Amino acid sequence: MQSYIDLSYQPGKSDVVCLFRVEPAVNVSLEKAVDAIAGESSIGTWTDISTMSEEIRDRLRPRAFSVDSSSGLVKIAYPLELFEPGNIPQLLSSVAGNIFGMKHVENLRLEDITLPEKYVKSFPGPLFGVGGIRRMLEIPLRPIVGTIVKPKVGLSPTAWRDAAREALAGGCDFVKDDENLTSQDFCPFDERAKLALGMIHSLEGSTARRFGYGCNISGSVETMVKRAEYIKRNGGRYMMIDVVTVGFAGLQYMRNLNTGLAIHAHRAMHAAITRNKKHGISMIVLAKLCRLAGVDQLHIGTAVGKMEGPAEEVAQIKDEMLDTSGKWRGLKTVFPVCSGGLHQGLIPDLMKLMGNDIIIQAGGGVYGHPDSPKAGAASMRQAVDAVMEGKSIEEYAKSHAELRRALEKFSA
Amino acid sequence: MQSYIDLSYQPGKSDVVCLFRVEPAVNVSLEKAVDAIAGESSIGTWTDISTMSEEIRDRLRPRAFSVDSSSGLVKIAYPLELFEPGNIPQLLSSVAGNIFGMKHVENLRLEDITLPEKYVKSFPGPLFGVGGIRRMLEIPLRPIVGTIVKPKVGLSPTAWRDAAREALAGGCDFVKDDENLTSQDFCPFDERAKLALGMIHSLEGSTARRFGYGCNISGSVETMVKRAEYIKRNGGRYMMIDVVTVGFAGLQYMRNLNTGLAIHAHRAMHAAITRNKKHGISMIVLAKLCRLAGVDQLHIGTAVGKMEGPAEEVAQIKDEMLDTSGKWRGLKTVFPVCSGGLHQGLIPDLMKLMGNDIIIQAGGGVYGHPDSPKAGAASMRQAVDAVMEGKSIEEYAKSHAELRRALEKFSA
Repeated sequence: MQSYIDLSYQPGKSDVVCLFRVEPAVNVSLEKAVDAIAGESSIGTWTDISTMSEEIRDRLRPRAFSVDSSSGLVKIAYPLELFEPGNIPQLLSSVAGNIFGMKHVENLRLEDITLPEKYVKSFPGPLFGVGGIRRMLEIPLRPIVGTIVKPKVGLSPTAWRDAAREALAGGCDFVKDDENLTSQDFCPFDERAKLALGMIHSLEGSTARRFGYGCNISGSVETMVKRAEYIKRNGGRYMMIDVVTVGFAGLQYMRNLNTGLAIHAHRAMHAAITRNKKHGISMIVLAKLCRLAGVDQLHIGTAVGKMEGPAEEVAQIKDEMLDTSGKWRGLKTVFPVCSGGLHQGLIPDLMKLMGNDIIIQAGGGVYGHPDSPKAGAASMRQAVDAVMEGKSIEEYAKSHAELRRALEKFSA
Repeated sequence: MQSYIDLSYQPGKSDVVCLFRVEPAVNVSLEKAVDAIAGESSIGTWTDISTMSEEIRDRLRPRAFSVDSSSGLVKIAYPLELFEPGNIPQLLSSVAGNIFGMKHVENLRLEDITLPEKYVKSFPGPLFGVGGIRRMLEIPLRPIVGTIVKPKVGLSPTAWRDAAREALAGGCDFVKDDENLTSQDFCPFDERAKLALGMIHSLEGSTARRFGYGCNISGSVETMVKRAEYIKRNGGRYMMIDVVTVGFAGLQYMRNLNTGLAIHAHRAMHAAITRNKKHGISMIVLAKLCRLAGVDQLHIGTAVGKMEGPAEEVAQIKDEMLDTSGKWRGLKTVFPVCSGGLHQGLIPDLMKLMGNDIIIQAGGGVYGHPDSPKAGAASMRQAVDAVMEGKSIEEYAKSHAELRRALEKFSA
């Protein structure tokens, strides 16, 4: 069989280019592994077949145009014709499908993907993006401060509402359900959403501030649709979706419905796929697909909290979500969400690494404050305000008791 | 904080029990890692919080009741109340969510999951199951023989139909799209489905046999619904779904719609999650979730073909899909599909390992036959018939030219 390796090939504007990290199986050459990967992800079969034609091969064959034997990094260009517009499952089934299970490789990782502008244009992208979210919440410049109501599960709807109210009254802009809270007997979705959204409307009236609530609608699609409609009817602004466990078919559908709700995307389970540096799919690839599908806010890591993820990688994802260059064909930006083990003491480092166009979420940092959730929320905002004013949080804490108390606990 | 480890605990009938393989991070004890995992997958936070109560903790806390420090195997029991009935994304976001990304672990794998009967009952399970599929195709005992029309992509609708006809006329019972063929310009879905289903109806008239066609509907949910309706209108029996790249929200929805179509589940991309033996989620867990969701046919591996997957693991998944014990609460069985690099020479070993209640799919084995796809299909059936008659394929090949020619090529 003819090889798909063609080092003289220069990828064109209508190629999908995938960067793979390939570790061939024992006794398999890198070239053989690359040919197997290129074929299995496009037009190939393990044996020569009578129904194949030169015409198909000429038009649709992939080309591995860069093969680095020391790193195992390989770039493969695929003609755009191989892919159905607007269909993320089909893209993944092609370039991230069977290949991970082939005997030719010991490990295989899809590190990055570059998509032709024509393909990008076949997706809606975010409904709001950073600008739209900032206008909706009337927060023009600083990071948005959010919290995850804790404990993750177990609060009744009224207890949930009260805990959320404390955080918002204290200074948070955004509250959300945790990824594993949907509609359990102890806290049914409708009851929680209705109480929380009612509380928000009342608090907005008395404070002249604006708030967001990421209600977790994750479930089978008919359930998500019902929940999104319920949120709309109750004047909510957001639906939260666990994008990896829900999957791209459901996520795309909820965006394509044009409900008018912003999508807060939690990435629970991503690390089952993204964490191993030799195998699986990188978070940058998943994040790009989430932007195509059209999430408005996406958890991307913290670089400084309880979850793994090197700072450079998190910053790279952030840059990609905020990129407004032509390659995104006008698709709106995605608000990067930093969440997971964050507390007041980590804010200066976080903002130095990530800038101001981020959503900073702290659950334990708010609900674990030694005095109260309200003080927790206030101190989170104080930490952000300190950085915005160019002051150190230690200095700021001298005149802000909530922050001082927080730092005593969390930065001890 | 109080530990979730309770070695004296005996899991009850209403516990969800997860078997994890835990490799703690450097300088983290197994016990500390287990506590972090148990908490993050249920009610815990990284710090103590003021909104937590004894009552919540008593009612909802998980218990790690088995911790083996030599293997790292850990069993955690979760109260059923933590989980929303009929919601696979919520289950995964809980017990297979954030935990894979925690710094406390170097690697973490969800090896198995045991679900309470009450939870199992909250799902529909397969519409047909093995018995229903066998009745539909009128094949009571032997393995069903299928093929994937090759090349994977590139054929026009008429070329696809003609290639499929050859395979069915030659002896295959089932034809299917490949995982990366949905609706590309060279082969639009509607045109392909209409031509293929028309061909099938005509061939059924002239042969008195029954055939199945797994049309790949994978895409955003509105697209899948349209395609399923189109298949129904054109008299089809199956929809094929790439279950991993589509995701569980979309899969559950398509089953819950009760279209009357059987679901053929391709598992493209599973190995990004399942392959690493130290990290991710095992295929047995994904397969159990697919049975809950209600697929009728599921790719489970071959143990003998081009894809990795130890024979014992593949056999274990097969047994689980065919299990009719009380734990499945009457949910129908799933027809295990063996697919990937199979050819005539591998059939005896495959059937010895897997038995007769399987669907054997060969793409290259049919379309790579030296004479024709028709001869390829005929020889696949001959190999199966030989085993059913207790004969060796070499002996059978003496009086069956198609099989002889196949073995000359594939078993050389």
